[in-house]
Amino acid sequence: MKELIRKRADSIVKQLGICGCRLSDIIENTEAEYTPPQVTLAAMKNAVDHTVLSFNATENDVLRICDEALKYGFKAICINPVWVRTAFEHRKINKGSYLIATVVNFPLGASTVQASVAETKQALTDGADEIDLVMGIGLLKSGKLKEVYENIKAVASCGGYLKVILETSELTVEEKIDGALISVLAGANMLKTSTGFSGKAALEDVKLLRTIAGNRLGVKAAGGIRDKSALIDMINAGADRIGCSSSVNIAEKW
Amino acid sequence: MKELIRKRADSIVKQLGICGCRLSDIIENTEAEYTPPQVTLAAMKNAVDHTVLSFNATENDVLRICDEALKYGFKAICINPVWVRTAFEHRKINKGSYLIATVVNFPLGASTVQASVAETKQALTDGADEIDLVMGIGLLKSGKLKEVYENIKAVASCGGYLKVILETSELTVEEKIDGALISVLAGANMLKTSTGFSGKAALEDVKLLRTIAGNRLGVKAAGGIRDKSALIDMINAGADRIGCSSSVNIAEKW
Repeated sequence: MKELIRKRADSIVKQLGICGCRLSDIIENTEAEYTPPQVTLAAMKNAVDHTVLSFNATENDVLRICDEALKYGFKAICINPVWVRTAFEHRKINKGSYLIATVVNFPLGASTVQASVAETKQALTDGADEIDLVMGIGLLKSGKLKEVYENIKAVASCGGYLKVILETSELTVEEKIDGALISVLAGANMLKTSTGFSGKAALEDVKLLRTIAGNRLGVKAAGGIRDKSALIDMINAGADRIGCSSSVNIAEKW
Repeated sequence: MKELIRKRADSIVKQLGICGCRLSDIIENTEAEYTPPQVTLAAMKNAVDHTVLSFNATENDVLRICDEALKYGFKAICINPVWVRTAFEHRKINKGSYLIATVVNFPLGASTVQASVAETKQALTDGADEIDLVMGIGLLKSGKLKEVYENIKAVASCGGYLKVILETSELTVEEKIDGALISVLAGANMLKTSTGFSGKAALEDVKLLRTIAGNRLGVKAAGGIRDKSALIDMINAGADRIGCSSSVNIAEKW
């Protein structure tokens, strides 16, 4: 797999017409040995993005998520952009320390870069700490790698901690590798498997993303992680962040 | 039903703090008698938004949709924002006359107004004629009618023919009426049932939207319309536009 990753990286650096020295970063990444933490309850809480992204979530649903993040000490919440300001105010009033993550170009990955940039800037203005951006999936599948790269780079330049969602379950192995490498080159801080709207996170995909991320970037597994054993498997496979809607249930039963 | 619509309209005009004279427009609308056209093949083609909105649609899929719109004489195509420029160029080269519709705040209806406005402006710059905007569904369900109204109004002011998607299958009767009335008041040109990502268009919902639209606004049925008889039923119920991915199949078998 490392050999395939290097071949694709070499090809991508050429296609994107960017500095070849970035290739050595990738090779260094894939050489790094990542050691998963022991999965205690505290480690689990420190890995969870407590998530509600359904289209019909109300203000009360978002406030409940915020209360739960406070109570259980989850790392972050992950909510739709329209609710970021609500969560930010709630966190301020309650002196919370959880991070606020929101989604951009979500869930289809089929909007324009101008829309993604505007959505990101507004989210950061409203108080978001982290941006979960869906990669241009149709663009990637159309071989438009330069556009995929430029779009991620434009969002990365807005600031905020950037997770790039690949929707791995819908990609070929080559597309997964290309999408992950382009994300690294464009400035992603974390590679994320899925939106949760199409397919689930797979252990093999988490391992692949961790190989490309090395010790420098994070890996987030999201989509279909509903119990303790699935969550532990994901962390052992290399995820250091878990997108999850069943977080309270898992913490209670730990 | 007309009585319920008037009651809600009265309440909404007060809640939004807008001119009461707009209420009389709504009452006039609901008094209008709408007569569906006879559903010939030509009428069907003139009603169809030939649609591909899946997240993994490629450039080739979009070009195929454009070719088919040309060949069959469909009213419009409906595609994701990232492909509007591609379709616009294709139409110019081929001297097509179909309209280009794209989607905004889609499919969750959970982004910020700033993102929706930026997405709309870019779509119009890229060559879109029509904007299919998802209403703020979570906002509506949270009772934030003023925000729902202001968001639609801001997008309406960008220009373009505006269809507002209500996602009717996920709303109560009162929410459907409120969403439709707010759309009318905010400047929508057409009321649309569904995104196609959550539930289907229902005949009852099309009838309700037509009652509110009267003869002044359009009504688009979308979501799960896959054969001739379903399409004819929708037009007879009051839809004058049909969002459909099976358009070629239906036209061929007519």
